[in-house]
Amino acid sequence: MVVPRLIERKRDGGTLTPEEWRELIGAYVAGLVPDYQLAALAMAVFFRGMSEEELGALTQAMLHSGARLDFGTWATPRVDKHSIGGVGDKTSLLLAPMLACCGVAVPMISGRGLGHTGGTLDKLEAIPGFRTGLSLDEATRQVQRLGCVMLGQTAELVPADRKLYALRDVTGTVESIPLISASIMSKKLAEDLRGLVLDIKTGSGAFLTEPAQSLRLAETMIGIGEAQGCRTVALLTAMDRPLGYACGNALEVEEAIHGLTGDGPEDLMEVTYALGVEMLLVGRVFQDRHAARRRLEASVGSGAAREKFAALIEAQGGNPSVVDDPRGLPHAPVQEVYRAPRAGVVTQVAPRLIGHAIIALGGGRLRTDDNIDPAVGFVVTAKPGQWVEAGQPIATVHARSVADGHIGLNALAASIQIGESAVATPLISHRVSRDGVESMSR
Amino acid sequence: MVVPRLIERKRDGGTLTPEEWRELIGAYVAGLVPDYQLAALAMAVFFRGMSEEELGALTQAMLHSGARLDFGTWATPRVDKHSIGGVGDKTSLLLAPMLACCGVAVPMISGRGLGHTGGTLDKLEAIPGFRTGLSLDEATRQVQRLGCVMLGQTAELVPADRKLYALRDVTGTVESIPLISASIMSKKLAEDLRGLVLDIKTGSGAFLTEPAQSLRLAETMIGIGEAQGCRTVALLTAMDRPLGYACGNALEVEEAIHGLTGDGPEDLMEVTYALGVEMLLVGRVFQDRHAARRRLEASVGSGAAREKFAALIEAQGGNPSVVDDPRGLPHAPVQEVYRAPRAGVVTQVAPRLIGHAIIALGGGRLRTDDNIDPAVGFVVTAKPGQWVEAGQPIATVHARSVADGHIGLNALAASIQIGESAVATPLISHRVSRDGVESMSR
Repeated sequence: MVVPRLIERKRDGGTLTPEEWRELIGAYVAGLVPDYQLAALAMAVFFRGMSEEELGALTQAMLHSGARLDFGTWATPRVDKHSIGGVGDKTSLLLAPMLACCGVAVPMISGRGLGHTGGTLDKLEAIPGFRTGLSLDEATRQVQRLGCVMLGQTAELVPADRKLYALRDVTGTVESIPLISASIMSKKLAEDLRGLVLDIKTGSGAFLTEPAQSLRLAETMIGIGEAQGCRTVALLTAMDRPLGYACGNALEVEEAIHGLTGDGPEDLMEVTYALGVEMLLVGRVFQDRHAARRRLEASVGSGAAREKFAALIEAQGGNPSVVDDPRGLPHAPVQEVYRAPRAGVVTQVAPRLIGHAIIALGGGRLRTDDNIDPAVGFVVTAKPGQWVEAGQPIATVHARSVADGHIGLNALAASIQIGESAVATPLISHRVSRDGVESMSR
Repeated sequence: MVVPRLIERKRDGGTLTPEEWRELIGAYVAGLVPDYQLAALAMAVFFRGMSEEELGALTQAMLHSGARLDFGTWATPRVDKHSIGGVGDKTSLLLAPMLACCGVAVPMISGRGLGHTGGTLDKLEAIPGFRTGLSLDEATRQVQRLGCVMLGQTAELVPADRKLYALRDVTGTVESIPLISASIMSKKLAEDLRGLVLDIKTGSGAFLTEPAQSLRLAETMIGIGEAQGCRTVALLTAMDRPLGYACGNALEVEEAIHGLTGDGPEDLMEVTYALGVEMLLVGRVFQDRHAARRRLEASVGSGAAREKFAALIEAQGGNPSVVDDPRGLPHAPVQEVYRAPRAGVVTQVAPRLIGHAIIALGGGRLRTDDNIDPAVGFVVTAKPGQWVEAGQPIATVHARSVADGHIGLNALAASIQIGESAVATPLISHRVSRDGVESMSR
């Protein structure tokens, strides 16, 4: 393997063999291939793309670069859901306990928030005592006992991805659909899954703003998953407004608990159930989506999912009483109510502005080593298309100080637009599977 | 300056400002920007190219990264010639002394051979005692005294190019016309020139095989040179066969001395005079090309150029007696004569095969730190289009052993094809200047 020749081949539109990808990634993780060669190769991939065979080989090479979850002969099928960055997206907090009540297990490895998008680990850590830094052994045992676990990536898991992602982050090579796909799928396939559901957020507040890009990402990731024997389905869901009302870590936990109790915001519940149904289908414990939906609704209606969440919190060192009494969650000292400045139809609730305002309030990160305040954020009850009266309370800022509260109010004024009429975008626009793309909007 | 944002901008088809290029190259040379970021940027440039303004800024930034030759107010105009890699190309050895006899000075900084192409420094070092490692001070003084100097790149000269070139060499980013152009031009402009002539070798034995690529390279380099006030002209010359007869370091020195004495091979002399005329024109000491040509011929006919070469050799520590008696040059112990295997017209003398055979005989390099034997090589008197009889001697191998001699004979058998008729390619196909492209072939 002469690395410059491999780079040149990719640069000139050729492909690397599976063996070459394996050898290259192995040597890179071992420190035998320098960062500058991988950086040049990643940029060549940005321009030239990768074949399905190459993507499979790269994903497998990354997957095999470290330890993995291994449930051996355990019969319960494992499924997971992965979302591509949004604002107000707390579906993971609902789905892990709900699915664990429906005959599948959820070994969910999540990430932290970065930039304007939130991360599941940060939300969980808003719960006092909650520990996301489990070992793979602990995680495996908890899944087998409880049906679900929610942890962060460990040092032993897919080290090739960690090293390569850090490099891409500083070399302008993040925005490559094949590299994004291999990165996500190597981590998800390390969970020893039968099925995976992807929630591809699309719109102004998402990583991908155009449906065409989202479809390409979905198809690429599905290709990788299916080739590795993991049934993979994707939903394209709207991120031109926040999902649900709450945006901010502790506020989102509280809203997730409402959801598990049966009174979450309608859009949040619709996306959660849609994803949950797909998870049960890819897990092959249900063939009928209506039956799957009824089972999920029953897990909420019976209180089982809520109890499962409490058990999950307890198992991971957190205080489970927050499920009954949200006062156990951190609260910001200042609340400022935002009122509609005029009567009209809400035409926009720009999620990116809200995400950036959370960073400004101290609740998000610009750099991976920033500390965050879990209590701050927004509750925005206004939704695009909704009629509001002048002076009607439509959002609340949760801030550390009155000054920060005003920053939050200004951000809301910029984010929420009121006009004459709104164009409705579908909450769930497409379903993508190995069988093709289905449009879900009427 | 946030480097990943600069990389992304170039990647997405944008341009960096001159100030950004200056800051980036300065920080790179200072070790403040890591290799992996420059590698990704170089690959993005490979795909996206650079604007004229960017190229000017990059070249200037590299030029200003170290020391330069500086002739101050010295009135004698400096000119140089740069050739893009060939086989048998010893024109520099003729041109430096010839031009120094014609009212211009030649401060020539040259490189070593790599791969199948030779390098001027290796040829000069075939002369016993010849020292190419001069300081810039020594070089400046010699030019002012003698009218010419021939040296290697020093550590102080254009360090940004040395660092960037080493990186490009291992990251598959060598073959970028803007980066090649900036690299060459930064080194040439460091010679404090009034004019520069580029010899863009084109054909199967050259770095660039297609005239369209050569024209693009010529135009890019001319754009850089003219923008920096250095009159720049390029000739596209044939490298589908070796230039002259001799291929190999000491053999080429011997042939160059023949050329300075008035009896060099016709093709070598034609290219040498054509380049020399352009050098006198860009130096603006002649306006008329016929007068320039006559002046150059007189420098040879009078013996002045030959004496100048002897003086140059002496000034740089070499034994000037080789000019009178080539037995002072290293000679290989084994000579094997190659005879035409059949009668017919020579249809091909493939230069790349001969260049690779020189490496096999020990006279060239695959890696920059390989040692070379100056004595070995080939003298190929057969030229495409020439009629040869069966058994006629048409080439000689100069080798270290009989076994190597046979390797050389096999290489000649592969390189020299004899058939029914040959398609003549023009020796000089195009002349390119700021005024446009002139086709020189009838």
